Amino acid sequence: MRRTPVFEPGAGAFGVEAALVLKLEQLQHTGSFKPRGAFNRILANDVPEGGVIAASGGNHGLGVAFASARVGVAAEIFIPDTSPETKIEGIRDLGATVHVVPGYYAEALEASRSRAEETGALVVHAYDQPEVVAGQGTVGLELQEQAPDVDTVLVAVGGAGLIGGISTWFGGDVRVIGVELELCPTLHTALERGEPVDVEVGGVAADALGAARAGRHGFAAARRFVDRVVLVPDEAIEWARSRLWLDAKIASEPGGATALAALLSGAYEPGPEQRLGVLVCGANADPATL
Amino acid sequence: MRRTPVFEPGAGAFGVEAALVLKLEQLQHTGSFKPRGAFNRILANDVPEGGVIAASGGNHGLGVAFASARVGVAAEIFIPDTSPETKIEGIRDLGATVHVVPGYYAEALEASRSRAEETGALVVHAYDQPEVVAGQGTVGLELQEQAPDVDTVLVAVGGAGLIGGISTWFGGDVRVIGVELELCPTLHTALERGEPVDVEVGGVAADALGAARAGRHGFAAARRFVDRVVLVPDEAIEWARSRLWLDAKIASEPGGATALAALLSGAYEPGPEQRLGVLVCGANADPATL
Repeated sequence: MRRTPVFEPGAGAFGVEAALVLKLEQLQHTGSFKPRGAFNRILANDVPEGGVIAASGGNHGLGVAFASARVGVAAEIFIPDTSPETKIEGIRDLGATVHVVPGYYAEALEASRSRAEETGALVVHAYDQPEVVAGQGTVGLELQEQAPDVDTVLVAVGGAGLIGGISTWFGGDVRVIGVELELCPTLHTALERGEPVDVEVGGVAADALGAARAGRHGFAAARRFVDRVVLVPDEAIEWARSRLWLDAKIASEPGGATALAALLSGAYEPGPEQRLGVLVCGANADPATL
Repeated sequence: MRRTPVFEPGAGAFGVEAALVLKLEQLQHTGSFKPRGAFNRILANDVPEGGVIAASGGNHGLGVAFASARVGVAAEIFIPDTSPETKIEGIRDLGATVHVVPGYYAEALEASRSRAEETGALVVHAYDQPEVVAGQGTVGLELQEQAPDVDTVLVAVGGAGLIGGISTWFGGDVRVIGVELELCPTLHTALERGEPVDVEVGGVAADALGAARAGRHGFAAARRFVDRVVLVPDEAIEWARSRLWLDAKIASEPGGATALAALLSGAYEPGPEQRLGVLVCGANADPATL
């Protein structure tokens, strides 16, 4: 893995008064944090002859394909046809076998399950396995080493693997805020209902954050260690993505800009004394749309 | 100024065997290192009523406009019509008065001189003033603090302000390698001839590196402290720009990828023991061209 840098753009950047510490995880191998969990899951298990199998909106597929290639095992990836072409092609370029499935992540997951039964491949879940959650948590470990004065971290949420790992790492010592799309409030709804339930999937970052149901492991961690989950509208995400580009030449995908969107939209209003960490977690989108 | 981060993408990134330390100076305010020198020049002098004036291929204009706005003085910027629209608009957005001049940097410089005589404005040269060279040199200062084990630094060269400042900072303790376009070998030719002379200006990064003649201060520093200047073809620069994007989601402009191009093209071949620093120094180009 790469130890991705942190960056302090200075007060006023992106129109945010507070001084931020950005963790530039979009510089990670494959353009998102996903290889962290993929490596951990693959290396912690014996990989059978059927290789490795995963369903993904795209970034997890890239992470699994990358980790598989490095470890030297075959990978099959199921990806929905609503995901960007750049992600589908990227997975192929990494040498994995790709199956494109109509729908969203849930449909790709369903299709991958029948195939996994056939082949006996090692399943690398996009967010709901302890090894995956723990691997993603290494983002928190690094951030704490790099910026020990950060007391609040904003993290975008899909299936709750990343926030599960990060919040478990911090174990309550740092305030962890989840950020979700208004059009896909997966963890927000789970916390409200007291258990993961299915929500409708939509919004501008659905290819990255479009999990219909929060993972059990991420949910359990979030219930203990996540301060709260705030919701942001699509426009705030697009705006955050533009500001990252205009003010700091940081390329991100919509899901990668979602944590910052909570500050731009006012969905999260920090106090004057807070020291904020913001995770930029992915950049797999056509740069022409920046 | 922002203290821009360094980043180690790991051996093999960009197709380069050696492990690199990238200094991500494209994350600087205005998307290049230029505000460093501009601030230093402006703050070290009394700014007359006529304000501040500069000629620039674009990045220096952005830097001067930014620094002027922060300091609270008026700025007039002369820019050639061969520069990208994104730079011209960016300077306007920062509140400076922009004059677009047919040609390259040399023509813009000429036009700015007559105007400066009229107004008496403080001239902020794009590279040939001690305060400007010293300001750019702070990139070297930071790099040394952030990656003290780096023994060789690759720096793209236009008018030799940046490399003049960086090489002076290191004072021979670190090997400094200049990288220029084959189609614009400004400092290379000056070092060969023993003095700055005019060269033809061209190539894919001309809007950033297209100085016809090396600055006297940068030249003097380079003669003492620069190990050598290597030349790269346009294709290597485009290739380096693509690899920065594909392998690490780093957006750069052609001039910003020029230092890396020396490694991709083999124009500079490091020994196995060398610890390389590579400066990514600008990202002011249309991201659709990535």
